[in-house]
Amino acid sequence: MSAGTRVALREVDASRFEGPSGASVAEAVVVEEPLAIRLGGDTLAVTMRTPGHDRELVLGFLWSEGVVRAPGDVSAIAHCGRTGSEGRDNTIEVTLAPGVRPPVDEQGELARRGTLISSACGVCGRRTIDDWVTLFPPLEPAEAEVDGAAIARAMASLRDRQPWFRESGGCHAASLVDYAGVPLATFEDVGRHNAVDKVVGSRILARRMPLDRTVLLVSGRASFEIVQKAVAARIPVVASVSAPSSMAIDLARRAHVTLMGFVRGERFTVYAGAERLR
Amino acid sequence: MSAGTRVALREVDASRFEGPSGASVAEAVVVEEPLAIRLGGDTLAVTMRTPGHDRELVLGFLWSEGVVRAPGDVSAIAHCGRTGSEGRDNTIEVTLAPGVRPPVDEQGELARRGTLISSACGVCGRRTIDDWVTLFPPLEPAEAEVDGAAIARAMASLRDRQPWFRESGGCHAASLVDYAGVPLATFEDVGRHNAVDKVVGSRILARRMPLDRTVLLVSGRASFEIVQKAVAARIPVVASVSAPSSMAIDLARRAHVTLMGFVRGERFTVYAGAERLR
Repeated sequence: MSAGTRVALREVDASRFEGPSGASVAEAVVVEEPLAIRLGGDTLAVTMRTPGHDRELVLGFLWSEGVVRAPGDVSAIAHCGRTGSEGRDNTIEVTLAPGVRPPVDEQGELARRGTLISSACGVCGRRTIDDWVTLFPPLEPAEAEVDGAAIARAMASLRDRQPWFRESGGCHAASLVDYAGVPLATFEDVGRHNAVDKVVGSRILARRMPLDRTVLLVSGRASFEIVQKAVAARIPVVASVSAPSSMAIDLARRAHVTLMGFVRGERFTVYAGAERLR
Repeated sequence: MSAGTRVALREVDASRFEGPSGASVAEAVVVEEPLAIRLGGDTLAVTMRTPGHDRELVLGFLWSEGVVRAPGDVSAIAHCGRTGSEGRDNTIEVTLAPGVRPPVDEQGELARRGTLISSACGVCGRRTIDDWVTLFPPLEPAEAEVDGAAIARAMASLRDRQPWFRESGGCHAASLVDYAGVPLATFEDVGRHNAVDKVVGSRILARRMPLDRTVLLVSGRASFEIVQKAVAARIPVVASVSAPSSMAIDLARRAHVTLMGFVRGERFTVYAGAERLR
């Protein structure tokens, strides 16, 4: 087991049944633990995640929320040093660079995740999308420069970059590839949105933002949240092995993101931005 | 299309590719829209959900959070009457019965979702489980009274109760069945946790709580959150077609919940509470 695998997977005793009698087995399961993200000593959000790439996760999350807009906006990001039940540290403290303001609500309190969104989207879906398009403007209108077949091939090889899924069957993956389908970053997590945050965060750490001329591959479905993260990171193409939701399609169309679903073998369905495909 | 299907699914124009050329198609996609849950005029949580059973969703959610402990704890639950972009109402207002207290944080402010959890689990996973076990005590120790084969058969027939998944490929399902595998309630949603909340909420509305001698079937993976909702509703068995996470297993073992994973055909793996199986 690699160091990453040691924190991401755990072996548990289980009983496997096939017909009436069970057999004792040792099964690899994906680790799910809470991570508290603290900003200036106050908790901004708690996410259930697979440990191992917390800095990437937090940076990508803060980028999607519009808190961090440039790689230099964070001056420090570190675990607090208190270890949890499994010897892991589940609290991470972020210090913003001077002049970078934390998100606050109308009362001047730290706007926690959820409240950040709730103030905008309580009334209707259209409001939410409008607000997001204001925070993150649409991408440039698409030109026919992406080869759909290259993306389909990149998706077909995604399983080869999912070692934790292979072991546990319980992980999502997100992978950033270039327009030729060459992988740039791949992460696994118990939560699909976390895997995307880790991908984006790794590019922030590498100071490779924004992510133009890239494709975000996701192992599951494409929800609003996934497209939202792509728009925030300026990723022009999102490809999913499964179905998109209505609001994912609405946002993709508004933001000029190409949204491909059911990418399986050579087949795929394009729900938005088909004009970007050659 | 039934009335339920009309709000849950939408037809969109898409292009289906197989090889180099695309064909225009009309595709059914699952509707995902935000629902703001308000308590006494203040927003408690916002969830991205598939519209159509908002009352069930909200009641089940409030039960899982420990706010509602008996069917009579809510005196009114109604949409606010403001319609969103799709003519649907995405804000629901809950009025608690006299004497039922809303969740508040240390400062006496409404404890929003996320903060409810964050105060407990920032430090480590064990703390979280301890706190949950305090809020919802473990179930009775298991007796060998459940027929695993009956549950496997109920899971095999779950697809027949997933009309929206059949149309869109983009929905999760949760189904409550009795120990003989007879379905009691089944709901679909873009979010797995929402589908579970709807199941629980429908039983609250029917005044059939607690849900002893029942099994919760979930179409996806079994995360901590799913087991937590089962514990809150006193459901003794959780069965998933896919993998459980480490924390789902930990909580199931602590709470005496039987946790079955990879339930496919006649096969399944038991991660916790195997002694409940005959």
